Amino acid sequence: MALNNYASGEWMPGISVDCVIFGFHENQLKVLTLRFNHTDIWSLPGGFVGVHEDLDAAAKRVLLERTGLSDIYLEQFHTFGCLKRIQQAKKQHKEVGDKMGRTQDDFDWISGRFITTGYFALVDFEKVNVNVGNLSDAYAWKDIQEVGELFLDHAEILQFALEQLRLSLDMKLVAFNLLTDTFTMSDVQSVYETILGKSLVRTNFQRKMLSLDILERIEKKYSGGAHKAPYLYRLIKK
Amino acid sequence: MALNNYASGEWMPGISVDCVIFGFHENQLKVLTLRFNHTDIWSLPGGFVGVHEDLDAAAKRVLLERTGLSDIYLEQFHTFGCLKRIQQAKKQHKEVGDKMGRTQDDFDWISGRFITTGYFALVDFEKVNVNVGNLSDAYAWKDIQEVGELFLDHAEILQFALEQLRLSLDMKLVAFNLLTDTFTMSDVQSVYETILGKSLVRTNFQRKMLSLDILERIEKKYSGGAHKAPYLYRLIKK
Repeated sequence: MALNNYASGEWMPGISVDCVIFGFHENQLKVLTLRFNHTDIWSLPGGFVGVHEDLDAAAKRVLLERTGLSDIYLEQFHTFGCLKRIQQAKKQHKEVGDKMGRTQDDFDWISGRFITTGYFALVDFEKVNVNVGNLSDAYAWKDIQEVGELFLDHAEILQFALEQLRLSLDMKLVAFNLLTDTFTMSDVQSVYETILGKSLVRTNFQRKMLSLDILERIEKKYSGGAHKAPYLYRLIKK
Repeated sequence: MALNNYASGEWMPGISVDCVIFGFHENQLKVLTLRFNHTDIWSLPGGFVGVHEDLDAAAKRVLLERTGLSDIYLEQFHTFGCLKRIQQAKKQHKEVGDKMGRTQDDFDWISGRFITTGYFALVDFEKVNVNVGNLSDAYAWKDIQEVGELFLDHAEILQFALEQLRLSLDMKLVAFNLLTDTFTMSDVQSVYETILGKSLVRTNFQRKMLSLDILERIEKKYSGGAHKAPYLYRLIKK
């Protein structure tokens, strides 16, 4: 497959997007990472911004290209514009560039200063078919506690995204993107606990959720056993 | 004063910063706007990003240049990267460019596509000495309800900043940047009410503030009258 010619004028110079794709499944929270071809350098999925492309559209494109998903929660959370985010990484760029057979023009362009806008997405990682693209030869859903070193400042971008994700639980009720149409209070609590990385007191959590006036109790959940069946809820459409 | 030569390579192409400087004083919330020389076009204070300058530093520089203030609350809130933010405004650019005697090179550079990162600041507007800079000939602290049309998408940027400011009241306790070291609960409520643009129930507000565990009650406020003197509080240092 032919490499893009990055210096061709097709892309905005100095601007990129990086996507922190959080994957949730059965009480595990992971993040999608890609390994650059023939290296041991892992990165977040990212890309450049077309000269005729909206910034948000570039992030959606990266997400679609890597995961095949288009109709999912994607939120811009911060733009990273420190000089040192690139300066400290000339060596990594050189290694990646060499291994990929880049031209000097491309290398100069890619290793120049970039300001990158971070987006995070939240998906069920069991439903994703990852396409590594032509710059990478492997992917991994890494446990967020065990990500290790990443390309450039991507570890810092990940931490920032994680803080925003946690804030978005309450502020933007982002957890409900991971639940089916109806769910038990225990289902909601599991998502919160996994994303927050800590246990929550059941009664307090339930009181808080109900006080938000966003949930509608719909029916008793069927239970064949002797235990009390939990209530089912759904989100009130606003 | 000589104009900068924007196309000289001193600045990052395609990237700018815009500052929404909220001014608060005695229960009024205003925003700082500048008028381009010899036009009736008003804008938010903004600027370009030096090739050797951090993105955040560019925002701090704009704030310092326009207000003389350096040690105040400044928060990045969103990056605006729609194509149409510039495309719809060629006419405005032409008008501003013509009035300023720009060269064609400068005009081409300035009227090209820009992605802009928005920052908001919160200041006491009574303490600010505005310096309009060499691109503007007037400034105004406009009431946020009566701003009217602004340059490019600056009205949209302002609305976005206002939403973030309101969210930051609870999440980041940003209101306390506007209070002196000690304050009454009524002082806090006034700041909240002005920024939120609505009245709050005193007892509920007080209960919520105290439940945050961020306030320390220090002493009775002196009162010469017969009425009960309000308590004074200060922020607990963390």
